[in-house]
Amino acid sequence: MPHALIDERCDELVSFFNRAPLRTAFGMTISYNQQHEAVFEMPYNQSFDHTMGGIFGGVIASMIDNAGWFTAAAQTDHWVSTANLNIQILEPAAKTLIRSIGHLVRSGKSLIVVNTEVHGETGNLIAIGTGTFSVSSIKRASIS
Amino acid sequence: MPHALIDERCDELVSFFNRAPLRTAFGMTISYNQQHEAVFEMPYNQSFDHTMGGIFGGVIASMIDNAGWFTAAAQTDHWVSTANLNIQILEPAAKTLIRSIGHLVRSGKSLIVVNTEVHGETGNLIAIGTGTFSVSSIKRASIS
Amino acid sequence: MPHALIDERCDELVSFFNRAPLRTAFGMTISYNQQHEAVFEMPYNQSFDHTMGGIFGGVIASMIDNAGWFTAAAQTDHWVSTANLNIQILEPAAKTLIRSIGHLVRSGKSLIVVNTEVHGETGNLIAIGTGTFSVSSIKRASIS
Amino acid sequence: MPHALIDERCDELVSFFNRAPLRTAFGMTISYNQQHEAVFEMPYNQSFDHTMGGIFGGVIASMIDNAGWFTAAAQTDHWVSTANLNIQILEPAAKTLIRSIGHLVRSGKSLIVVNTEVHGETGNLIAIGTGTFSVSSIKRASIS
Repeated sequence: MPHALIDERCDELVSFFNRAPLRTAFGMTISYNQQHEAVFEMPYNQSFDHTMGGIFGGVIASMIDNAGWFTAAAQTDHWVSTANLNIQILEPAAKTLIRSIGHLVRSGKSLIVVNTEVHGETGNLIAIGTGTFSVSSIKRASIS
Repeated sequence: MPHALIDERCDELVSFFNRAPLRTAFGMTISYNQQHEAVFEMPYNQSFDHTMGGIFGGVIASMIDNAGWFTAAAQTDHWVSTANLNIQILEPAAKTLIRSIGHLVRSGKSLIVVNTEVHGETGNLIAIGTGTFSVSSIKRASIS
Repeated sequence: MPHALIDERCDELVSFFNRAPLRTAFGMTISYNQQHEAVFEMPYNQSFDHTMGGIFGGVIASMIDNAGWFTAAAQTDHWVSTANLNIQILEPAAKTLIRSIGHLVRSGKSLIVVNTEVHGETGNLIAIGTGTFSVSSIKRASIS
Repeated sequence: MPHALIDERCDELVSFFNRAPLRTAFGMTISYNQQHEAVFEMPYNQSFDHTMGGIFGGVIASMIDNAGWFTAAAQTDHWVSTANLNIQILEPAAKTLIRSIGHLVRSGKSLIVVNTEVHGETGNLIAIGTGTFSVSSIKRASIS
């Protein structure tokens, strides 16, 4: 795929995410690296703590779903949806910025597979995940 | 295990969740059914919508992590942590209350496995998940 | 779907499996129950033991893949392929017949999701699994 | 850990695998690379073909379980068991040698996480998997 095309698609996806209500709720930010892999950051937000002060597993899962979905979406003009997420939480995280980054494993016609890593502020690996995203027959432009 | 003991533990866990900052952020509620399985409900909250108006995959994952974790925690006085989550999203959900319920598969000495179902308002099955929870050597009472 | 149609499809799939080279290698047998869910049995076979005398995890995985795939295939005339398998091994198994049974969770146009349980001879639950099967555009009749 | 110690442990695990009945059944071979990650090869064996002539998903799963388990076992003198396997099959494989290689993600006190890749003869990526292995309190030497 010509780089100019995928660059443009990434720009559209950034703007797509920035219009999402949940962007404000979680305070997450999106960017793409030069390999067109999605990178999400979420500053520490006490509102998403567990009773014990650790970051909620659902927030980790959200960061993995986001990085995977946006890395997959950069591969196609069609609408994609999360079919399967597998998540391994490797260590607890508390009071830290977290960053997730997608790594494209396979871009198929009907399924796209993305591995994602979640790191803490100091680069420590907090969690890994694999997402399988289903490519629909609907063009994204027609609905977004 | 005597029912009185596990009933008491469930009461403590409900109160534990109700002190969590994230309880307010998401507006989720917890209860236990008579089989001591955790049930979570989250009323529709526009703040967690995607750009397209659908409920965020991360919210579904959160509901699965919660129902699994609290079903597992009801089995032990020790601290448990989410080791692995596997999630299948079966259909999109939009503008609906969602409800998750854990089903205990195996309560082992070091690992507890819980299957979780997520339903929409009309009872439609939105997602399923399996969580593996690691039982630590630390008593929950000593930290909560 | 009319029962007569799915009954016929199950008969074809049984005969399909019985022609597979791996059927002989593993000594597995297939049947369908009245809900058109695939049931596999594998008598104890010392050749698939680990060094320690336990049944190999790969055999458990095979029993889960088989029950899932054949339960999914009974839903469609199109070729299906395993996209994702998630397996929880709950307890060791040794020197026992094992039996796997699929349970259809969702039969979608492009993806079919099946939960599978693996039991030992005495009915003890050895493992659970979830399979996601991708439905291709190719008719099975054209290739089998 | 001193390299001499882990080198010795890998030698013992190679000999452990080579005594397994299933080694002969599948014709798999084991080795360790310089990073002490397990590498398995299985020459094409018509006996494990599906009816359609493709390699059985259960064989792919077995190659992922093996590379993961032996990579995990090299990290500890204690007995480990497969708790969870997650497998993504990316493309069909037929009439080809397959090779799996483990990559250690986290070596914890009670859980070890390993990512595994499965390649075909020409280096094409056929499948990926993640395994979670539970470390028991039993020394391997006492049972093997």
